[in-house]
Amino acid sequence: MTVRLKAFIFDVFGTVVDWRGGVAAACAQAFEGKGITFDPFRFAELWRDQYQPAMERVRSGDRGYVSLDILHRENLDRVLQQTGLEAHFEARDRDVLNRAWEKLPPWPGSVEALASLKQRFIIAPCSNGSIALMVRLAKYGGLPWDAIVGADIARSYKPQHEVYLGSCTALGLEPGEVMMVAAHNDDLEAASAAGLQTGYFPRPTENGPGQTTDLEPTGQWDICADNMTHFAAAVAAR
Amino acid sequence: MTVRLKAFIFDVFGTVVDWRGGVAAACAQAFEGKGITFDPFRFAELWRDQYQPAMERVRSGDRGYVSLDILHRENLDRVLQQTGLEAHFEARDRDVLNRAWEKLPPWPGSVEALASLKQRFIIAPCSNGSIALMVRLAKYGGLPWDAIVGADIARSYKPQHEVYLGSCTALGLEPGEVMMVAAHNDDLEAASAAGLQTGYFPRPTENGPGQTTDLEPTGQWDICADNMTHFAAAVAAR
Repeated sequence: MTVRLKAFIFDVFGTVVDWRGGVAAACAQAFEGKGITFDPFRFAELWRDQYQPAMERVRSGDRGYVSLDILHRENLDRVLQQTGLEAHFEARDRDVLNRAWEKLPPWPGSVEALASLKQRFIIAPCSNGSIALMVRLAKYGGLPWDAIVGADIARSYKPQHEVYLGSCTALGLEPGEVMMVAAHNDDLEAASAAGLQTGYFPRPTENGPGQTTDLEPTGQWDICADNMTHFAAAVAAR
Repeated sequence: MTVRLKAFIFDVFGTVVDWRGGVAAACAQAFEGKGITFDPFRFAELWRDQYQPAMERVRSGDRGYVSLDILHRENLDRVLQQTGLEAHFEARDRDVLNRAWEKLPPWPGSVEALASLKQRFIIAPCSNGSIALMVRLAKYGGLPWDAIVGADIARSYKPQHEVYLGSCTALGLEPGEVMMVAAHNDDLEAASAAGLQTGYFPRPTENGPGQTTDLEPTGQWDICADNMTHFAAAVAAR
């Protein structure tokens, strides 16, 4: 490697934390209190299905930047309508349920891997989640970030190149000094095209037991490992 | 208190770290290597004297937002000229010396006080320093911030209200849920006017042994203590 690596920036939803399990747990709790029998995992998936289309309106310029917290809240309205559960949730209940995204459990080993990388490098989330959301996730799960970069810094959503580039600028680094780490090949494709280094490991149950995507690296990423623990070990061994 | 406090945001230069001692130490090292006998503390003070005028050009709209790293670098050129030391420093030497601002020692007790507050609250710098500078200061001194807000987030400089308000927004909080903490009364005056809660303790040797300013609170700040350790203890006791 000719350029010295100085920072690792991470995708968060799916890569560092289990959004599906965390959101389903919050939904299960809310549904139980209201006598709703709808499958909470299915609800979490339907809610996440609205994620890309909502961001696409911002990416396309159809709408100015609004934080993911607001998009999640709007998407919740949509999914409650779609599932026929609207009448069970007043505005206040919806605001509370929207905070499900602030309480997502780190995958086993995530915290330890970050702590290991932090000894020698700057570590920061480069997520589509807002600073507000990232700080609450970090408090909830004990994620030891040095700083928070990503969508809120660039006022745009990944995979727009300005999110990766704006995150590097905020850290005072050149793109080649930064490695984007994700369990999603499309995120790495965009980061690589923007000039960043890339790191990959799979999260084979992010989308549930039947997941068929992102089980393998589909590009020539700079570091590939079979999980986050081995990824951190591979970095330490370099 | 009617509104529940959720975060403490801190002034950094002078309040959390000793800029004068840290910059003087870096200057002393650089001067020694070049056989310069100029007093490094005096040099640090002259460099800092350029701080407010440089930011004022941005605050007044005379100039667009540029990060403090750039202002520090420009101010260094000015001070080297003023002190007749220009010929000793090539551009590359100046870039290195400018990094003095990234290696400022925390005042004794700062790290422990932050760690104590972090247990129950979000803690973040609300400094005129950039995210890049704050992350390096945190790495250097072990400052356990949850996030970094301040000038870079708002693209403006304190005491402009948008820096305080933009920092609250970035954390997903109302101004009344956030306490600005500083050893500088003018910083707190502005934060208070913007609707934030305020916390004060003095740093009686920030500007050197003969300091006459900010030795006492000059406003009705929400929490006043005689040092940062006692400040954290006062918060814990509430």
